[in-house]
Parts: sequence; C-alpha cells; structure tokens
Amino acid sequence: MKINKLLVKTKNKNYSIFVGKDIANNLHGIFKRENINLNKCLIVVDKELPKNPCYKIINSIHSKQKKIIFFRSSEKNKNFSSVNKILDSLFRENFSREDCVIAIGGGITGDVVGFAASIYKRGIKFINIPTTLLAQVDSSVGGKTGVNNKYGKNLIGTFNQPDLVISEINFLKSLPKRELICGYAEILKHTIIANRRKFSFLEKNKNKILKLNSDIIQKAIVDSCIIKKKVIEKDERERNLRKVLNFGHTFAHSFEASLKYTKKLNHGEAVLMGMKCAIKFSQQIKCISKNDAIRLIKHIDSLKLKNLKNFFKFKNIETLIKFMKNDKKNKSNKINLILLKRIGKPEINSNYSVSLIKKFLYNELN
Amino acid sequence: MKINKLLVKTKNKNYSIFVGKDIANNLHGIFKRENINLNKCLIVVDKELPKNPCYKIINSIHSKQKKIIFFRSSEKNKNFSSVNKILDSLFRENFSREDCVIAIGGGITGDVVGFAASIYKRGIKFINIPTTLLAQVDSSVGGKTGVNNKYGKNLIGTFNQPDLVISEINFLKSLPKRELICGYAEILKHTIIANRRKFSFLEKNKNKILKLNSDIIQKAIVDSCIIKKKVIEKDERERNLRKVLNFGHTFAHSFEASLKYTKKLNHGEAVLMGMKCAIKFSQQIKCISKNDAIRLIKHIDSLKLKNLKNFFKFKNIETLIKFMKNDKKNKSNKINLILLKRIGKPEINSNYSVSLIKKFLYNELN
Repeated sequence: MKINKLLVKTKNKNYSIFVGKDIANNLHGIFKRENINLNKCLIVVDKELPKNPCYKIINSIHSKQKKIIFFRSSEKNKNFSSVNKILDSLFRENFSREDCVIAIGGGITGDVVGFAASIYKRGIKFINIPTTLLAQVDSSVGGKTGVNNKYGKNLIGTFNQPDLVISEINFLKSLPKRELICGYAEILKHTIIANRRKFSFLEKNKNKILKLNSDIIQKAIVDSCIIKKKVIEKDERERNLRKVLNFGHTFAHSFEASLKYTKKLNHGEAVLMGMKCAIKFSQQIKCISKNDAIRLIKHIDSLKLKNLKNFFKFKNIETLIKFMKNDKKNKSNKINLILLKRIGKPEINSNYSVSLIKKFLYNELN
Repeated sequence: MKINKLLVKTKNKNYSIFVGKDIANNLHGIFKRENINLNKCLIVVDKELPKNPCYKIINSIHSKQKKIIFFRSSEKNKNFSSVNKILDSLFRENFSREDCVIAIGGGITGDVVGFAASIYKRGIKFINIPTTLLAQVDSSVGGKTGVNNKYGKNLIGTFNQPDLVISEINFLKSLPKRELICGYAEILKHTIIANRRKFSFLEKNKNKILKLNSDIIQKAIVDSCIIKKKVIEKDERERNLRKVLNFGHTFAHSFEASLKYTKKLNHGEAVLMGMKCAIKFSQQIKCISKNDAIRLIKHIDSLKLKNLKNFFKFKNIETLIKFMKNDKKNKSNKINLILLKRIGKPEINSNYSVSLIKKFLYNELN
C-alpha cells in the first residue's frame, strides 16, 4: 500500500500528515517538498522506543546540526519541568525560529515537545513523528499541546499546529495489546461521532485492526485522521464543534485524575469506560435509541476491559465530580457532556447539573 | 476629544482598541458591545499604580465574581514563577475558558498576564488595560506575550491577541518623565519606519506630547497604534514584515541584557540608543542618506539621554554581541538588523556578520 498524504488547512497554517510503511526511505524527499529547513534540528526521542524503526527515521533526517535528547515519557513527566529541559537544550544551542524540533514518540512526547516548540521564542518549527496508534489517530492531529499539573490533565498548553506529521506504522508492531486498544478507543470515538457506515466497518474489522493487518490498520488510521481533520479545520480552537472530539472524555479525564494517572488505567481504557458512560447517560436521558446504545456497548464490551466498578466505589463519586467540573470545556457551574443522538450524530451543547451526574454515577457503581 | 476606537483584524481574532479619557464612564457599555462575558473575572493589577484612575476602572467592571490580585511588575518578576502565580489563582477558582483575565498595568504586566492567559486551558479570554505610554502605543497591540529567562528577554512566550484593549490616558499623568520618554521612543520608532510626514509632526509636537497635552497625546497614541496594527494585520507571527517593528531593538535588547535589566537603563532608553545605533549603522553601510540620518539623530539627541559610552566599554563588546546573536529574529549564525533606507522606509532582510557589527560597536565606544 502506498503512503497516504492528508493536507490539514487551518487559519494559521497548512500542513501535511503522511501515513504509511517504511516512510524513512522517502523522508528526505518529503522534507524537501514540504519546505522543512533542516539546517539545525533538535530531536526529542521517547527513551523506550524500539531501536530499529527509530534509528531508521533518525538516520534519514539529514541535518547539518542534529542534536538528540531522550525523554522518559509518562504522565508524571508530562509537566513544566520536562518542557523546561527541552527549552534549555534549544537556548543552549541558540536555535532560531527557523530551525526545527522533532518529536519521536507517543502522545505524551508529542504534547510536551509541541508545547515547548510553541513557546520557544514564541514558536519554532515543529515536526511530530507519532509512534503509538493513539498518537497517530488522534493526538498528532489538530495542534493541541500541553502538560498536566496538580489540578488535572493537559490544563496548561497551547493550540499550536505542527509543520508536518509522519505516521510510520512500523512502530506499531512493538506496541503491547493494551496500547493498541488505547489507539483503537480513539478510532472508535471518531467513528461513533461522525460516521455510522464506518462503525459497521469497525464492527467487521476490529480484530484485523488489533492484529495490525497492514492495509486495514493504515485505512483505519487515515479514516480516523480525516474525521478529526475535518472537525479541526472548522473549529481549531474548540469554540464549539471541536468539543465533539471530547465524547467520553469528561468522564475519562475524571477517572484518570481520580486514580492519579496510575498505569492501572491508561488513557484509552479510560476513554472506553468514559464513552460507555456517555452512551448510557445518553440513553438514560432518552437522547439515543436503545438499539444504538446496545450495539455500541456490545462493541465496547467485546474489547473485554475492566469496568467502572473495578476502579471506583461510592465514596469516590465526590472526587470524580470534582475532576469533571475542572474539565476545560465547562462553562462555570454546570458540567458539559458530549452525548450521542445516534451512531454518527453527537449532541454538543448539553450542560447537566452536578446532581444528575452524581445520581448516574451512583447507579453505575451500584 | 471623543474616545477613539480601532479594530484590529487578525486571522484568528478581531478585537478593538479604545483610546481616550475617562473611559471608565463608558466601560460597561463597551464590554457589552464587545461581547465580553463578565461572569467571572480575575483582575491582575500593577501594585504601583495610582489609586484613583485604577479604582475608577476596577469599580466600573461589573462582574458577578471579581477577584483582584496585585503584581509587582519588574523585569526580574517577568518570569515563569509570576505566570504560575496567575495560573494558580485561575485554577484555584476553576475559571473556565469563557471567563476572563484582565491586566491593568504597564507592558510587563500585560506580557506576563497575556502569556498566562494564553496557556491557561489553552487560552482564556484576555483584556488588556495598559497604563503606561509605552504599553498603550506598543506592547498592548499585536498579541506578543512572554517572559524573560537567563538567556534573554521575552524568550518564552506566545502570539496571543487580546480580546479587548482599553487605553485610558488619565493613567499617564502620574508617569515620571523617564517613563514618558520610554513610550515616546516607540512612537518615534513606529513613525520612523512608516511615515515621513508624521515624523515632521513629531518634530513639531514632541514637547507637547511629553507635556501630555491631551489632544496631541491621544492623536499620537492612535497614530502609533494604527501603524502597528497595519503591520501585524499583514504579518501577525513575525514571518517577515513584522520584523520592521524591531527597528533598533536588536541593539536595545543586548544593551538591556548586558546590564542585566538594571533600572539604570529602561527599555525605552535602550530603544532610543538602539535606534541611534541602527541609524548610524545604516549610514555607515550607505543605506540611508546623511541628511536623513542627521535629522533623526538630532531628534533623538534632543531628548537629552545618556549615550552608549555611559554604559559600556570595549570589554563589553563580546557580551553585547552574544546577546545580539540570541535575538529571536536571527536565523542561525548571522545577525539580523532592521535598517533604514530613508525616514519612513525600513530595510528588513539584512543579515550582517558578527565582525562588521563588532567593528561598528568598537567605533561607537571609541
């Protein structure tokens, strides 16, 4: 299968996303055609990446001055001190705005490096090379950058589109199944909110995707990026439409935050549980039909993950609500939830009272 | 004189700048017409501001939930720790993106608060109420935010346009003459790079401006904002044209940084010295005519400030060059200088070798 190229057009910047296998062989030509000046570059690499595809990429970056630093990616390290280390590397070598920073790693690496790139001298060129399924289908598209702090996840950051995204599917081979499911959760989210027909495709091909059948996974990544790209082209700064991409995420973020971002529950697993909550809540308030809800929940359950009760008890509800209230999408006082009207059709501007959501969580944990 | 309103149109955002006297009386209506939601607001106020015009403004902000914090503005406090204090105030009260942050103070206050606003939940509404002449004619227009670090000035920041700017000229009365000259330096800069005719106006009215003749100063502020607004509307992110606004600033920043931002030399004084260097350098490489150069230098000298030799000796040249190389506008290795072809006509993309600039500084300090 050939390399796919998508063009993302935002107000400030147009940029390309390349998805495919063995992109390293074509990287030099891609940089040239995309007008990336490689005079001087800083490459920030996730320390845990498999050496082979990683060095193939690094070696095909022909820069006059190439500096490599390693980053131990984790939610704990997704903080301002990691951003500062990257900034310091750039300042020490006096990088100019025309030079570039390249991230090779998962979503955390991309978010941290992207944030540093966006505030270094008010913005230096940024290339993202996402290496996890999650990052390839979701976080590398759309320019959200950020770090966590004690108040919650991704609460400090910028909207800063990259200058180029390279999604090499060879990286996916080394991912543990749990990580693949993580990415699958976001593919599923994009599909559920945007395309009923493609949900049928997922129902049919879920196992092939998780087994990394090359053609199917490449198609799934590209489809997912197309859905996301269309949303962010219309609403880069999450004023309205873009909020649909947070389907399941208000719940998910509160699950992760309450558990202090432990590895017991990763982001994708939290999103799957969160989407299940959003679907059930949609059904409870009669927003979505029972049939659609059952079909969706059956699909999520087929992934055989743990459920809410494995992680939370009644006594945790107050904490969960506290973190839900902290969500960036909330206007003061009420909690904004993205719900579903039917498969492929989200409901954006719904705010619900804390008491209604508390009651819902109580029932779920009963 | 009535209140002037300018509309700034950038790719991401259109916003208004109001310039006038006793704006507090009209503030409620302005907020309403500009669609500013004052449900919840954080007001960050420069600690040293005169109480009278300040509280008039604060009292005319009718917000359901109004939190005021004080900021001791100084180049030393223009750092990430000050940003963090503001972020913390916002997180503690769980501000949403739709709520707003208001800065009342000079350029430092605006830059620090604007930066915090731009990274809080990836961007919260931001209103800037500049209180110094410098901030009213320059830093409040165009969305540059940022903080200093050990490598130099404003090296960490974002481009983030405010949602509204209110320039109340009553604030100017309490400014010491040195501060007024600071603002005048930027008025002069805008005029020199853009409008020969308006330079004659300054030659004629400099003293009235510095004596704060109401009508003349309001006209000077508005003229200055118009020049800057036109530049940033064409090039918000300083890819090319916007660099003209840095006329004299590569020198100026190195002067300030070498002196560790001491109060002995403030930004405006550094800019005046920097412009003088840029004009002399322009003349030396035969970019500008002798007549124009003499006319400009005569005007700058009429402000009777100290000159380069009062601050630097030969032995400081290496340090000055080091800081000039750090300037954000530089591409690798050479030093970018904005020079003048004639009054009103800048020369943008000129890079000069370190040795040529060293030689120039050597002659200036001889």
